[in-house]
Amino acid sequence: MTTLFLIGIGTGNPDHVTGQAVRALNGADLILIPRKGAAKSDLADLRRQILSQVLTAPVPVADYDVPQRAEQDDYLGAVNDWHDAIARVWAETIASHHPRPRTVALMVWGDPSLYDSTLRIAARLPGIAVKVVPGITSLQVLTAAHAIPLNTLAAPVTITTGRQLRDHGWPAGATTLAVMLDKGGAFTVLPSDTEIWWGAYVGMPEETLIHGPLSEVGDRILATRARLRAEHGWIMDIYLLRRGGDV
Amino acid sequence: MTTLFLIGIGTGNPDHVTGQAVRALNGADLILIPRKGAAKSDLADLRRQILSQVLTAPVPVADYDVPQRAEQDDYLGAVNDWHDAIARVWAETIASHHPRPRTVALMVWGDPSLYDSTLRIAARLPGIAVKVVPGITSLQVLTAAHAIPLNTLAAPVTITTGRQLRDHGWPAGATTLAVMLDKGGAFTVLPSDTEIWWGAYVGMPEETLIHGPLSEVGDRILATRARLRAEHGWIMDIYLLRRGGDV
Repeated sequence: MTTLFLIGIGTGNPDHVTGQAVRALNGADLILIPRKGAAKSDLADLRRQILSQVLTAPVPVADYDVPQRAEQDDYLGAVNDWHDAIARVWAETIASHHPRPRTVALMVWGDPSLYDSTLRIAARLPGIAVKVVPGITSLQVLTAAHAIPLNTLAAPVTITTGRQLRDHGWPAGATTLAVMLDKGGAFTVLPSDTEIWWGAYVGMPEETLIHGPLSEVGDRILATRARLRAEHGWIMDIYLLRRGGDV
Repeated sequence: MTTLFLIGIGTGNPDHVTGQAVRALNGADLILIPRKGAAKSDLADLRRQILSQVLTAPVPVADYDVPQRAEQDDYLGAVNDWHDAIARVWAETIASHHPRPRTVALMVWGDPSLYDSTLRIAARLPGIAVKVVPGITSLQVLTAAHAIPLNTLAAPVTITTGRQLRDHGWPAGATTLAVMLDKGGAFTVLPSDTEIWWGAYVGMPEETLIHGPLSEVGDRILATRARLRAEHGWIMDIYLLRRGGDV
């Protein structure tokens, strides 16, 4: 029986890594790393940088090529096919390693629980037990950078995606909305007095923060996002929205 | 100018502590620790245990007595008064330390952003700059322990309190609900086919997990919770709920 450790590594600051993650990486017989693509190269490098800082003895590393996701109308169908393809690559990569590893580690951006596919992909692998090591999410790094609480006093918080916000608008009853995976500008569907705390590359040296009502900062966020994306070749951003003025 | 570091320390497993937290604790001129009360003594001890593991040189520690929160009908008013009282104690404790500390550290259970008062209390201190170091939340430890994602595929998640669930029921449009700070049994207002992933003392040696539809495990959770609370003198639990069978 092989155990696959899905290890949250935070969002780009090697200092986000927990003691538990360090222990799990050092205890692995094999570490899987997605091969560095043209874009997002900073992220692939980050995994190697973390390993060079935390491994106390060499651990075998296997690179794998991440399959491309098909662009098709059936979004959930395309995602499911893509997860099947990644699961096959993981299974082949693990099977081709000798001796057969008892423990395999995968470093997951942020935390494996939040808008991450690795748990669903791992569930497709027969004969593999899955263990999760939590990591700091971009949402926590965003609120830490702005030094704000996620929730207003004793009130709920909804975490959602740019797609959901664009398609369904502000969720009924929500006072705080955290938006992840926005391809850009989903917040433009909202009233301009909505307050936004935005961050790009949170936790990384390139971290960029903007805060204010959408009426004052909405256009600046869109322009900054476009500029940074062109500059770095990729962008990862996240934001928190509040209505009602409460903090 | 004094800088106050609010440092998330995770939920009871010293291995949750991040490299960033270790660095901030070692860089502090003074560390504030709430004095051990009769209940929750395990938590006070945990802070000292973490310090004994991560400090590379001695750092002065100041204990403070946590004021009691008044039990009154005006819940938010009582909480605000309580935060005022804690802010006064922090200010006095910092002011009575010589030489005046440039950096003060406070260890926060979980993450300072999520249902935690320290950011609101720190905002009451004049002439103090606040920095936040994110930590692993009980919600992340819960999903890691059950090895489940927080969200269903591309869908939103609402984080709420036991009080909100009891008073307002299931939020409109939500598929996944994470409930924190429940004094016990708020989930009994829900249909019995709701699925629950429950955890008490998540991350600690006493960690206890139960999973299933409320119809099968609801009563068992209530009984287990009562027994554990009597046994330990305190309890901290959290749960995730899903409707619609989707994972």
